Amino acid sequence: MLETVSEEPETETSNVPDIVVGRLPLYLRALSEMAMAGKLFTSSQELAAALGISSAQIRKDLSHFGEFGKQGTGYAVLELRDHLRQILQLDREWPVIVIGAGHIGSAVANYSGFAQRGFRVVAVFDNAPERIGTSIGAHRVKAMSELGAVIAQWRVQHAMLTVPAEFAQPVADQIIVAGIKAILNYAPTTLAVPPQVHVEYIDPVLHLQRMTYYL
Amino acid sequence: MLETVSEEPETETSNVPDIVVGRLPLYLRALSEMAMAGKLFTSSQELAAALGISSAQIRKDLSHFGEFGKQGTGYAVLELRDHLRQILQLDREWPVIVIGAGHIGSAVANYSGFAQRGFRVVAVFDNAPERIGTSIGAHRVKAMSELGAVIAQWRVQHAMLTVPAEFAQPVADQIIVAGIKAILNYAPTTLAVPPQVHVEYIDPVLHLQRMTYYL
Repeated sequence: MLETVSEEPETETSNVPDIVVGRLPLYLRALSEMAMAGKLFTSSQELAAALGISSAQIRKDLSHFGEFGKQGTGYAVLELRDHLRQILQLDREWPVIVIGAGHIGSAVANYSGFAQRGFRVVAVFDNAPERIGTSIGAHRVKAMSELGAVIAQWRVQHAMLTVPAEFAQPVADQIIVAGIKAILNYAPTTLAVPPQVHVEYIDPVLHLQRMTYYL
Repeated sequence: MLETVSEEPETETSNVPDIVVGRLPLYLRALSEMAMAGKLFTSSQELAAALGISSAQIRKDLSHFGEFGKQGTGYAVLELRDHLRQILQLDREWPVIVIGAGHIGSAVANYSGFAQRGFRVVAVFDNAPERIGTSIGAHRVKAMSELGAVIAQWRVQHAMLTVPAEFAQPVADQIIVAGIKAILNYAPTTLAVPPQVHVEYIDPVLHLQRMTYYL
């Protein structure tokens, strides 16, 4: 994500550089695709070609977590995939809540791509009376007053924030107080959060603007 | 975006590092917020606090494009905003097409945040007969056979790709042949494209997985 691009080499919770951690999900995605295609072995060169990252970078990144590749045969796809899942703590399913039941919130709540990759949307919230109680896929939109109960019931730590930009900060404050530790923010604004809370950003316009520079 | 994080310092079309270009839209967003709030001047320290990027980095990034800040008064918000718009070629409106009229495509086509930031969705395409002709906001979903005519009419260079992962590569090939130069790919897979075509990626699961490492 643009906002997390940084030259800081270390984080306080780990001695693996944040930029390396950011590439692990990408390796996991490529390995999962290979596994689904029935592939048994791969190489840093093949991963490099698939991902547009240099093979030297890939070998260096993976070396933070032990010795995976074997001279001659390369990486065992399933073994490396499962190891990355473990490193990323994706060998279990994490509950996620969606805050904001507008167009983006609805699309996210209906997105089928979470389940196989470690996440499950357990509830969708909104504060607009006309939206509370309506259906989004299998979910009945809940009132913000139910937030605490849902977070406690499912032990939720992840939230996707799909509210308008002007409400993003107050809503973020509210869900952090309720126990959320990781926020994926779809509102086009930067959030101020305590150091123990993680934020990632999705703003499609930033990506369009970046590419436009080169046209 | 995770996929474009790279240590390569230069691109072939510019001598401004790609990683700096990637931060410019973020500066522009912050400056536009300040302008809307009626703020006249700002500083690299204030931008740093708003964005979580160091003030030294911000000054260094902006120095690639000339002398903006003045000792004592800082940056003139409107001037710097307009200059960044010019650098990013956002002093005009760019037409964008959406390929894929599912949940995400519909949300993107209805998203009101493009207009003020340089982009306008001019058409939505799908290849499913049951979707062609249906309405998404102000758009009537068009057949892929109409792609060439729409691209020619609006001189479209940008596309947002919101098709399932297994169709992303063939559809990307098709729109590139038709003239698309910049693809924002929402499908959770890496695309192979010719060197003159730019791709950025949005995959919410990558962001959730990255944060989960730290929980």
